[in-house]
Amino acid sequence: MSEELTKVTHIDNVRLGDDERSVVIIDQTQLPNRTEYLTLRTVQEMYDAIKLLKVRGAPAIGICAGYCMYALARQIDTDDFDYFVTTFCRYKDYLNSSRPTAVNLSWALNRMDRVLDRGQGDEDLGDVLDALGDECRAIHREDIEMCRAISEYGLSLLKDGDGLLTHCNAGPLATSRYGTALGPMFLGKEKGMEFHVFSDETRPLLQGARLTSYELQKAGIDVTLICDNMASIVMKNGWINACLVGCDRIAANGDAANKIGTSGVAILAKHYGIPFYVLGPTSTIDMSCATGDDIEIELRDPEEIKNKFYAEPQALAEVKCYNPAFDVTDHSLITAIVTEKGICYPPFSDSLAALFAGDK
Amino acid sequence: MSEELTKVTHIDNVRLGDDERSVVIIDQTQLPNRTEYLTLRTVQEMYDAIKLLKVRGAPAIGICAGYCMYALARQIDTDDFDYFVTTFCRYKDYLNSSRPTAVNLSWALNRMDRVLDRGQGDEDLGDVLDALGDECRAIHREDIEMCRAISEYGLSLLKDGDGLLTHCNAGPLATSRYGTALGPMFLGKEKGMEFHVFSDETRPLLQGARLTSYELQKAGIDVTLICDNMASIVMKNGWINACLVGCDRIAANGDAANKIGTSGVAILAKHYGIPFYVLGPTSTIDMSCATGDDIEIELRDPEEIKNKFYAEPQALAEVKCYNPAFDVTDHSLITAIVTEKGICYPPFSDSLAALFAGDK
Repeated sequence: MSEELTKVTHIDNVRLGDDERSVVIIDQTQLPNRTEYLTLRTVQEMYDAIKLLKVRGAPAIGICAGYCMYALARQIDTDDFDYFVTTFCRYKDYLNSSRPTAVNLSWALNRMDRVLDRGQGDEDLGDVLDALGDECRAIHREDIEMCRAISEYGLSLLKDGDGLLTHCNAGPLATSRYGTALGPMFLGKEKGMEFHVFSDETRPLLQGARLTSYELQKAGIDVTLICDNMASIVMKNGWINACLVGCDRIAANGDAANKIGTSGVAILAKHYGIPFYVLGPTSTIDMSCATGDDIEIELRDPEEIKNKFYAEPQALAEVKCYNPAFDVTDHSLITAIVTEKGICYPPFSDSLAALFAGDK
Repeated sequence: MSEELTKVTHIDNVRLGDDERSVVIIDQTQLPNRTEYLTLRTVQEMYDAIKLLKVRGAPAIGICAGYCMYALARQIDTDDFDYFVTTFCRYKDYLNSSRPTAVNLSWALNRMDRVLDRGQGDEDLGDVLDALGDECRAIHREDIEMCRAISEYGLSLLKDGDGLLTHCNAGPLATSRYGTALGPMFLGKEKGMEFHVFSDETRPLLQGARLTSYELQKAGIDVTLICDNMASIVMKNGWINACLVGCDRIAANGDAANKIGTSGVAILAKHYGIPFYVLGPTSTIDMSCATGDDIEIELRDPEEIKNKFYAEPQALAEVKCYNPAFDVTDHSLITAIVTEKGICYPPFSDSLAALFAGDK
């Protein structure tokens, strides 16, 4: 594996602080111009880091949330188990309110919470803290394995020389190691394959420009940055063999919430006859959501559209904006959903249910 | 008509200078933050104004080109007809090279050129200059009439309360008076109708944010600014009854070149069952282009994607970009083409040909 590739796939995007009372993240909002590490100590700093997308990407948010709960738990200065649990749950609920759409946030928080349930009866806080430490490290370790497996399954759908289009960022920064949607690209590169990747810049927060094209370029993968509205012409030009995107929440019928604009890419892909793949861990599949209509879509500040990144505002102050952070891609537009447990094909209501059948 | 509406539809975007040796334009690159008028005196200033989109919009470029050729003609200090023609043609060819896709530029330049042909034989330069002055004023006057007629025909396709989506800017700044794609909105407002307009911001140069939302807001029309990749969700939300876009060149089969991203909007509209209308003067129809494949697509500077408007670059310097200024919307995606001579429906190869039948 080349050194430049390793540097990208082993980037230290989220980790527990050495004191185990803090979490250290790369501030993704400062990339690509500055690589800055932030140490999150208070619950407010942790909430803000998630809310303001300093840490982002559904899997990375989950990993971060696990470490945050452990670091916060170690800060609770008490011998009283009930007080500990009450404080822990207050922190958990507050972090959970930072972003509503990605399921991994509440999934990771609930995993940490269930450790306390197991501690009930024992009530030795030292044991509970140890168990919380094990759990957050397990979340991270499992994510690394999941990303690797997703990358392997995803790569099996591609061939050397393919033109690929991706939207937003589901690479190492958003996950761990290989990433999900970008995982097959990094894994393919490792195996000596060459892909020609087109990265949608992904307005309004430019994750495609700032993060995806950054990661691919740094790894030595051929990448071309385009504006979101150029996806149609690159497909029409015959340059795209497959679209690969991540996901923030998948409903039981296969409807998939992902970064705003993903549904548009899927409709274009269908129009041009190009396969459209959604890649993500099974933790992203929310069987309690029957369809995409049940997924809450986060609405963000209009100033992200009018002001963010600019030297001066690019619309009148009085102009209204609509700024949904996600949209839902209808299951009928998805060729396959690639998870760490395998590739699901339509009808997704059957194939997704089968994934979980073994867990019961 | 309300004063605020009149201010927008009677904006002085392009006019002949008082000395008739210059052209005065609003610098569209400075909007919405500053309303600056530029006086273009040399052919280089005129070329740059078109190339750098200080004046933009196919019809406005045509009007500007007519005035420029007249102003330049008046600066040619000679009594020699042949020298005059040679110099005039050099200026014309240079201006014609500023932007390749919009047909109105060469169309207006050729109209001015044909005045010289008519002067051949007479060769009184005073008469020729008078005729050139008449011709450029006629181009402008006819554009006002065309925009009004397009707006009337376009409005006949809409109903009070409609949600409308537009891409880029085909309003008063891009044309004269009402505009083309935005014309029905302004005319409807004048008649007391209310539309709910969604304006794609239109990356990379943000004409939708900077110009369309500006014009509609100033005219008191309900407008919501969105990123280009949000067109799919607003259509899915059921908020859009029709899409209206301008055009830069239409082929004989109805394939239409317009601002990059237009073809994507058309594909989404088809997917969601929403009518997609292209509005433009018949001067935009290029019967010498059999299909959209014959239309040259202008490629622009990658820095427009990575650097323009930003306080600092938002992608690594070494990342490649693909930056086409236009794309071609396939005729099969277009519900109707609205011209000043009437509304053309598929099959466009017949209906467009019929428009010109009377001209023979």
